[in-house]
Order: sequence, then C-alpha cells, then structure tokens
Amino acid sequence: MKMKYFYILAVVLLASCGGGNQSAQQKEKRMTTTNIVHGSIIELMVPEDEGGNSINEALWARQSSREYRDIPLYLEELSGVMWAAAGVNRPDGHLTAPSALALYPIKTYAFLNEGVYLYNAKENIMERIVEGDYRHLATLQDFANKPSLNIVYIADMSVYEGKDISEEKKLMLCGMDAAGYAENVNLFAAAYDLKSITRGGAKENELLELLQLDPARYKFILAQTVGK
Amino acid sequence: MKMKYFYILAVVLLASCGGGNQSAQQKEKRMTTTNIVHGSIIELMVPEDEGGNSINEALWARQSSREYRDIPLYLEELSGVMWAAAGVNRPDGHLTAPSALALYPIKTYAFLNEGVYLYNAKENIMERIVEGDYRHLATLQDFANKPSLNIVYIADMSVYEGKDISEEKKLMLCGMDAAGYAENVNLFAAAYDLKSITRGGAKENELLELLQLDPARYKFILAQTVGK
Repeated sequence: MKMKYFYILAVVLLASCGGGNQSAQQKEKRMTTTNIVHGSIIELMVPEDEGGNSINEALWARQSSREYRDIPLYLEELSGVMWAAAGVNRPDGHLTAPSALALYPIKTYAFLNEGVYLYNAKENIMERIVEGDYRHLATLQDFANKPSLNIVYIADMSVYEGKDISEEKKLMLCGMDAAGYAENVNLFAAAYDLKSITRGGAKENELLELLQLDPARYKFILAQTVGK
Repeated sequence: MKMKYFYILAVVLLASCGGGNQSAQQKEKRMTTTNIVHGSIIELMVPEDEGGNSINEALWARQSSREYRDIPLYLEELSGVMWAAAGVNRPDGHLTAPSALALYPIKTYAFLNEGVYLYNAKENIMERIVEGDYRHLATLQDFANKPSLNIVYIADMSVYEGKDISEEKKLMLCGMDAAGYAENVNLFAAAYDLKSITRGGAKENELLELLQLDPARYKFILAQTVGK
C-alpha cells in the first residue's frame, strides 16, 4: 500500500472523528505553518506532491472574485500560488505553464503590502525590488487595492529580437503566456479555497517606472489578484 | 459524514484489497464507460464533482508532449477535456475559464478522426460541422496529425465591435482567452494521465474555409493536441 493511501485513510478517520468538519481542520493545519516574513528575500516552500483539491473540484470552483478581506496569505499559500504561475516542475528547469516558442518573456512580480518582489523560480525565492505598499499601482479597480497579493506579469520583449514575428503577434504571444500563468493560479486558488481574478488593467507607466524597467523593452501584460 | 468520505473510504478499501494497484483499477473503471460514438451529435458526460488527481499533482505533471499513440479518448475523458476548456461550471452559465471583458469571443472546435465538432457548452454536447478526418489542418507539425483530439480555438472578432480597443489589443485579448482555455485543458490532462500540448500553428486559411467561417470576422487563435 502506497503512502498516499495511509494519508487518505488518516483524512477519512479524522473526518469521521470530527463529524466531517474537514474544512476547519485544514485551516488549523495551515495555521501551524510559518506566516510570511516580509524581508528582502522570501524563501518559498516547495509545494507538496499531492496537495489541494482535485482538478475537477478546482474547475467546478473556478470563478473571478471581486470581494476580498484584508488577510495575508500563509507562506504555504503564497509559495503555491507563485509556483502555480511560473514555478519549476521538472529537473530540466521547465515550468508549470508553457511559453510560446519556449522564449519565456514573462517576469512575475508579487505586490504585497510591504513591498514588490520578483519571483525567482529557479531558486524558489522572491526577491524584493521595492519596499512599500504599491498594490494600488497593480490595478485600476478599487477592490484590488487591499487584497493580500497582486501579481503583475511583465514581458521582456527583447526575447523576440531576431525572430520574424510582427509586433502585433509578439503582443499576442506574451498575452498567451501570461494568461496561461494566470490560469494556473486561478485553478490553484480554486483548489485551495482562495479567491482570485485575472485583470487586464494596471497603472502601466507608473508600474514600469517603479520597477525601473525601460518601456522600450518591457511591457505590462496582465495582473491578477489572489486573496481570501 | 459527507458522501465524499464514503467515496474516499471506498477507494481506500479497494486499494487495500487490490494491493494498492489503483492505477490499473482506474483504467478498468474507464474501460467500462461507453466509448465515443461519432454521430452528428456527441452527448457529453457531466464531469464528476471530485474527479482527477489533485491540483498539485497536475501542476507537477504539466508538460508539453509531442509523442502520442493513435488511441481514442474515452467519452469520459473527451467530456472532461471540453468542459475544462470552456465548460459551464455555475448555474448562471459562467465558464471554467475567464474571458477578458466577459466578451467570450472563442469558439472551441474538436477535430476527431471522424469529423470536426463545435463544442456547445450550454447543452454539454458537440455538434458535427464537417464529416471526415481533418486533424492535419489543425496543425503544422506532423506529430499532431494522428493523436485522437486536436482542439482549435477560433475567435469571433465581432464581439469587439463598438468597443474602443485597438486591433492589436483585440488579438491579444483573444489570445489570452484561448490560452486560459488551453491551460485548463493542460492541467486537466495532467491530472488524468493524458498528454497535451498548446500549439500556435495550424493551416489557418484552409481551416476557416472548411468551417465556412468568414476570415473578415473569424480568426484562428490557438490549437491544442490531447491524447495518450
């Protein structure tokens, strides 16, 4: 019998003993994990092999949420969300989401209340780029100012240099890449009872200025809110 | 105790009795489902509430596959794949994947060996548009001629009429929508031990002609192969 059956059995027994209140037990389990330390580097956790609800449950639950409470994500949740977006899932360094032509133009930024972090998938860490609360720059909609996490997907258009691709097509390819990352996050969120929404709008110029990214090379592509 | 715990318990007991060979049992279970009848209408199955592996397992397993055997999907699998792409997941008719500005330009076609079908999410059926094997039109790559299912995402650009959106931006929005649909399918496939790949190329003009879609209004956006 594989270990996972012991795990399932344990869940069944716990659920039976506790009158089936699995949700409260799951929350308690999460409470025991370390909360986020907003230092200049956030060391992310490696996602469990088998965590979260099933894919069907995730797909049934997937929806765009516009109401959030101002509650931070646990490190376990933040780690999972970033990994779902653009994490390494194979020894050869490939990611959880595909990239058109395998060019990987998308850089994934996390806007938290204490700073803006760049996700480093290879090291499984987040590196602070700017200190301070800039979540409002990651959205044009008031509801997204305060949820714990706004993700911003920015494309480095230089990856297309030397390719025979029209400007119009480049933008489309970037958009597809970022939308795939974001949809991974949407399903991850749905499978972990988190809320999320993919958003097209942000204060683009101010964002790029804040992150000291040259607008001739970098473009804002998508944003996403994840929270509770 | 909720029904789902009985279900989990049943799985545990089955796994215990059978020496933990759950994979073989799962396959046997699938063998008992009806195989696809390629009539003019394919009545799809409603996906189970809790089917498939967990979201973490799906994200760990997600990869782009380029080697397939010529084996058809079971109706259960085909149903799940189409629903993952663009199925209804709420009573109000909303879909498993989001659409930018809620305009839903994407039409989802399934190229099977016996015909091309249009997915009708509301009725949970596939309607045959053309009889015959046109899978080769859905790809520019030889490996994708023969796998059991090629999905083609085509945008009806008329949904953007009257909106103040540049042509460049419209294409990007379509691309994002289709990429979200496709990523849902990639994760569904990964969670059900199916293979998949999102592809950017197809014989676009021939496709639109075959489907009798006006190129002034409809655009090929993405294709995807799903198989075994």
